[in-house]
Amino acid sequence: MFDSTVKIGNNVTIKEGVRVGKNVVIEDDVYLDYDCIIRDNVHIKKGSFIGARSILGEYLMDFYKDKENKVHPLVIGENSLIRTENVIYGDTVIGDNFQSGHKVTIRENNKIGNNVRIGTLSDIQHHCYIGNYISIHSNVFIGEESKINDYVWIFPHVVLTNDPAPPSNELLGVTIDSFAVIAAKSVLLPGVHIHEDALVGAGAIVTKDVPSETVVVGNPAKEISSVRKIKNKITGEYTYPWRNTFKRGMPWQDSDYETWIRNMDINTLNIYK
Amino acid sequence: MFDSTVKIGNNVTIKEGVRVGKNVVIEDDVYLDYDCIIRDNVHIKKGSFIGARSILGEYLMDFYKDKENKVHPLVIGENSLIRTENVIYGDTVIGDNFQSGHKVTIRENNKIGNNVRIGTLSDIQHHCYIGNYISIHSNVFIGEESKINDYVWIFPHVVLTNDPAPPSNELLGVTIDSFAVIAAKSVLLPGVHIHEDALVGAGAIVTKDVPSETVVVGNPAKEISSVRKIKNKITGEYTYPWRNTFKRGMPWQDSDYETWIRNMDINTLNIYK
Amino acid sequence: MFDSTVKIGNNVTIKEGVRVGKNVVIEDDVYLDYDCIIRDNVHIKKGSFIGARSILGEYLMDFYKDKENKVHPLVIGENSLIRTENVIYGDTVIGDNFQSGHKVTIRENNKIGNNVRIGTLSDIQHHCYIGNYISIHSNVFIGEESKINDYVWIFPHVVLTNDPAPPSNELLGVTIDSFAVIAAKSVLLPGVHIHEDALVGAGAIVTKDVPSETVVVGNPAKEISSVRKIKNKITGEYTYPWRNTFKRGMPWQDSDYETWIRNMDINTLNIYK
Repeated sequence: MFDSTVKIGNNVTIKEGVRVGKNVVIEDDVYLDYDCIIRDNVHIKKGSFIGARSILGEYLMDFYKDKENKVHPLVIGENSLIRTENVIYGDTVIGDNFQSGHKVTIRENNKIGNNVRIGTLSDIQHHCYIGNYISIHSNVFIGEESKINDYVWIFPHVVLTNDPAPPSNELLGVTIDSFAVIAAKSVLLPGVHIHEDALVGAGAIVTKDVPSETVVVGNPAKEISSVRKIKNKITGEYTYPWRNTFKRGMPWQDSDYETWIRNMDINTLNIYK
Repeated sequence: MFDSTVKIGNNVTIKEGVRVGKNVVIEDDVYLDYDCIIRDNVHIKKGSFIGARSILGEYLMDFYKDKENKVHPLVIGENSLIRTENVIYGDTVIGDNFQSGHKVTIRENNKIGNNVRIGTLSDIQHHCYIGNYISIHSNVFIGEESKINDYVWIFPHVVLTNDPAPPSNELLGVTIDSFAVIAAKSVLLPGVHIHEDALVGAGAIVTKDVPSETVVVGNPAKEISSVRKIKNKITGEYTYPWRNTFKRGMPWQDSDYETWIRNMDINTLNIYK
Repeated sequence: MFDSTVKIGNNVTIKEGVRVGKNVVIEDDVYLDYDCIIRDNVHIKKGSFIGARSILGEYLMDFYKDKENKVHPLVIGENSLIRTENVIYGDTVIGDNFQSGHKVTIRENNKIGNNVRIGTLSDIQHHCYIGNYISIHSNVFIGEESKINDYVWIFPHVVLTNDPAPPSNELLGVTIDSFAVIAAKSVLLPGVHIHEDALVGAGAIVTKDVPSETVVVGNPAKEISSVRKIKNKITGEYTYPWRNTFKRGMPWQDSDYETWIRNMDINTLNIYK
């Protein structure tokens, strides 16, 4: 049924209409829903679910010249949950426990860590670094050369840009440090650096770097406060830095951030370069 | 061809590649275009058209644990026109004469009334109430717990948020009252209440409630006028409240709003709770 | 296999699952990837690639009344590269060397010139004029009656509106003149005219016409400078008008703009009406 170079593990479910290319590895307990297209050199690790009509290992530009698929491997980590109609290119590596919504696009040369979630319609351009425990909500645009460190939250319809003088031949990606929060519909201009624990308000147009623990809002975005002064409208409690008040899905969910970080082996920390 | 629990009415068209699950009811005069996936417990009422590759009755989160589809019914009302590649989850009810563009996503636990239109790429999260005669244009994001009453217009790329201190464990949905208009690219912050006949200008970042018949614009949005002072740039006429000047597709299209409301049976009015 | 009215040229690749309607012309060296739906009266010119699951010649509104497809031809120019899951309606003409990303929607009665690129998720409404050598990036919304002249750049998440008093019965499209640049996430209000070489900053809400060579930013957008004063952050060089500093993919890429325009045959210039 499939090419002889395809390796399929135990307890794999493959629904009708799935197409599989060459040199594909499908580990144990993977589920491929209706009509997925798995192109060449894709490796799906154990326990992952691939939603109906997702296309994995999508062609890069070099395919279109001679219609020959070059070697551009894609790795999907363990226990990932990719919903319907995602398109994920080759030359990308995605870690374990990845979750995506519907109709997500992820291009080539991306490195995505563990426990990352990407919402419906989001569009991740090429050559991005996306760390661990990151939540990217619906319809976010991540431009080329973006660097997003661990524990960052990005809410719906945010745009990360990268061209310092459009159209130009330069690329100046955005950097977001750990624990920063980027609220809905904001725009980060090329080369902007958002520091740890900062909060970018909804609809902010961020034209310069944001210091740590700082809230910016407006067009253009201006500093208005320390994050430590922001209260939750419902509970009335101070909520930032959020790592002290929020734990769902985080590695400290069974204790608290302070306890978890004190007991952590520093050698396991993920520091991006 | 289909499971024995599937009931199919008269004059139903089912194009090639359509897949149908269990306990599905397809009433008379329904048309299912190429490659639709109708999962379990979906009820499509008479005269509806389901565009190519739409997925109805999509899995909720509980599916992914054991790959068993639990009972989460989806009802699509009569004479609906769902275009290609929509994904609509179970546990949702959609009324009659629904129309959607391409690639719309509608999640679980939504209640959508009659004569609602939702544009291409729009993304309706879960636990929303959407009334009757509502127009939601392209690429709108409706966050969880949103309440949208009858006769509301929402234009392209609008975002309705709901997390009062992101990331938090609280949800504070937006409420939009009847006859309000939300122009393109605006953002409504968590818990904001837009009152009757209000007009939110394009690109407004709305951080607090908007009184009835009030125009707000800017970032942050500020009141600038009564809607009664706004003229149509082309005709030069006063146009708000729009129910007095616009009738296409509305229940008063054969007379006018005043006549229609005077002659209406008050018991048929839809009031949300 | 296909209807007798279908004409297929030499060296055409048709992958599994492709469906082809009536009166379709597929010229030499065309490649149709998996599961494309080519409805009636579509003409695909030589050398074009149609990505997996794209739908060409999509139904207009008149189909849904009687489920009979009327004659609404679609022409796709030579050497076009349409990626996966595009939906392109009938009654539209697209020129040569067209390139699109994934999941693009293009509706009816559009005229699109040569060397146009449209990014992932962009949504082109009906009755638009889009000239030549235009780059429209990801997730742009182009409202009905928009006119975009040659050599325009539109960046991600831009919205072109058209209803002067929403909801109204009038349409007042946006006009963008040659060499203008519209940065990410900006909104152009109905009837706005952006003149040659203008630069609309990221997140600008443009409520009135922008003169040539002018930079506008903010909400509402205000003039802040001549484009001639803007330097590239990285190179430190003046970059606007960009036609003097950027040439990749442009007809002057082998010389420079000045040389190219001096040597050009004026009769080949494309002037829109």
